[in-house]
Amino acid sequence: MSAKPFERVAIIGIGLIGSSLARVLRRDCPDTRIVACARRAETLAAVTRLGIADEVTDDPAAAVKGADLVVLATPLSAYAGIAERIAPAVTKGAIVTDVGSCKAAVIRDLAPLVEAGVRLVPGHPVAGTEHSGPESGFAELFRDRWCILTPGADADPNAVAKVTELWELAGMRVTTMLPDHHDMVLAMTSHLPHLIAYTIVGTATALGDDLKSEVIAFSACGFRDFTRIAASDPIMWRDIFIKNREAVLDILQRFSEDLTALQRAIRYGEADTLEKRFRETRAIRRSVIEAKQA
Amino acid sequence: MSAKPFERVAIIGIGLIGSSLARVLRRDCPDTRIVACARRAETLAAVTRLGIADEVTDDPAAAVKGADLVVLATPLSAYAGIAERIAPAVTKGAIVTDVGSCKAAVIRDLAPLVEAGVRLVPGHPVAGTEHSGPESGFAELFRDRWCILTPGADADPNAVAKVTELWELAGMRVTTMLPDHHDMVLAMTSHLPHLIAYTIVGTATALGDDLKSEVIAFSACGFRDFTRIAASDPIMWRDIFIKNREAVLDILQRFSEDLTALQRAIRYGEADTLEKRFRETRAIRRSVIEAKQA
Repeated sequence: MSAKPFERVAIIGIGLIGSSLARVLRRDCPDTRIVACARRAETLAAVTRLGIADEVTDDPAAAVKGADLVVLATPLSAYAGIAERIAPAVTKGAIVTDVGSCKAAVIRDLAPLVEAGVRLVPGHPVAGTEHSGPESGFAELFRDRWCILTPGADADPNAVAKVTELWELAGMRVTTMLPDHHDMVLAMTSHLPHLIAYTIVGTATALGDDLKSEVIAFSACGFRDFTRIAASDPIMWRDIFIKNREAVLDILQRFSEDLTALQRAIRYGEADTLEKRFRETRAIRRSVIEAKQA
Repeated sequence: MSAKPFERVAIIGIGLIGSSLARVLRRDCPDTRIVACARRAETLAAVTRLGIADEVTDDPAAAVKGADLVVLATPLSAYAGIAERIAPAVTKGAIVTDVGSCKAAVIRDLAPLVEAGVRLVPGHPVAGTEHSGPESGFAELFRDRWCILTPGADADPNAVAKVTELWELAGMRVTTMLPDHHDMVLAMTSHLPHLIAYTIVGTATALGDDLKSEVIAFSACGFRDFTRIAASDPIMWRDIFIKNREAVLDILQRFSEDLTALQRAIRYGEADTLEKRFRETRAIRRSVIEAKQA
């Protein structure tokens, strides 16, 4: 970290994202002290074994004591409880950020921390794999991906700059958005695709054992791409859908209408409608490739 | 090819699959004469440039003259017309197979050929990429994938054995199924995933230009996997949905019910329902990996 690295970073929740960030700090900021906090003893044991933190604890309040940066990286449903527990212990003026996949809910749930005098900079490093836990992390996870920050209108610019610097260190391109807008964009690019993938794999599961083994054998022609997404962390995704309910239901409604239109075209044999629709989607793929996100 | 390779193979339609098969024959059966047939002059020029056929023609009747194997590899909508055109020209006793993604419709559309005395062995090499055209083909496309044959009850066992041998040469595992069963399995593993991918990419496209550029930038978290599938050949897929209508509508109905159930769980904040569903789908991913289809 350029001028002034963080002295003591508390990472609350040390799964795929938290442990990957710890690895970045280990690599680039060897003098920064890392405190990892997790509920489960196995997770803390794994962190110790991996050597990616200087201290481990299952008490969030103990973790944040003296930290100048607190990173929340737990499932979203834990935020409100953690905020309540760490508010009395956190250093006034400390920067608090997070890695959660929806942002409006985060800002509501972390309000007690802002009242306690921290500088809140909500963030979302848009990176991940279908694997979870500290063993799955790696420092290069963030390379060339986007990180979206959603600071409030009254956020401290210096705090925003320091969080920006942190994710740039990890190799990310950092941008800012309004929280509601972030939630809508992510509902489209991430939350709906995951919901669809979970659904389609569920539909296949319900077909019965005979057909199921064939579905697995012949998965190479489309289905397997969905199984990868649908192998993502169930708790993390449960929380995303609960917390980003409004945006997900909005996008889902649009999707359902579009699917019904195609269903109708199939039923009535409207070949031209189908072909026209399928041609349009090719252009989007080219844009994704050009944006180097493929 | 082991004992007795084909002497003259006519490949009608020389895109990704047809040209990949031509490459396999070139590699493993140098004495087999390959005739490639396509409608468009550019396609035939590409085939000549690539050196993957001994003769090229835009006339299917000329292509099948003297061939002991005819492979149909065009979009499904062309089958009936081609069958009518080649029936008078095809050698009695010649083996006719195809590579189409649905099978009950194929058997109906190719009936004139059976009446003309050919030995029909409908087939489906379950392999592909999102690219199309003869330049996209490669001999290794089929390696370790499944090929499904759907011969009728009165099919000639020798013809089935020879088509089996052909695809085994390409590195495929060959199995047989009833046509309707094939169509149901593929509706689930391939046709529904493609329909969903086309739909979701269409939904994103309709969001308007501002949001669209952001959707592309932040596609790494789920959406991009769908854009790859949705870049598949529009004509091929139009035909699949028209020809496999019944099975696709059946599977689509199940999917819609499952999606509606999850939508309802999100609306009413039923976290347990979501988590339970998301846990179940992880097991399927493990099965896909174990079946070496990942």
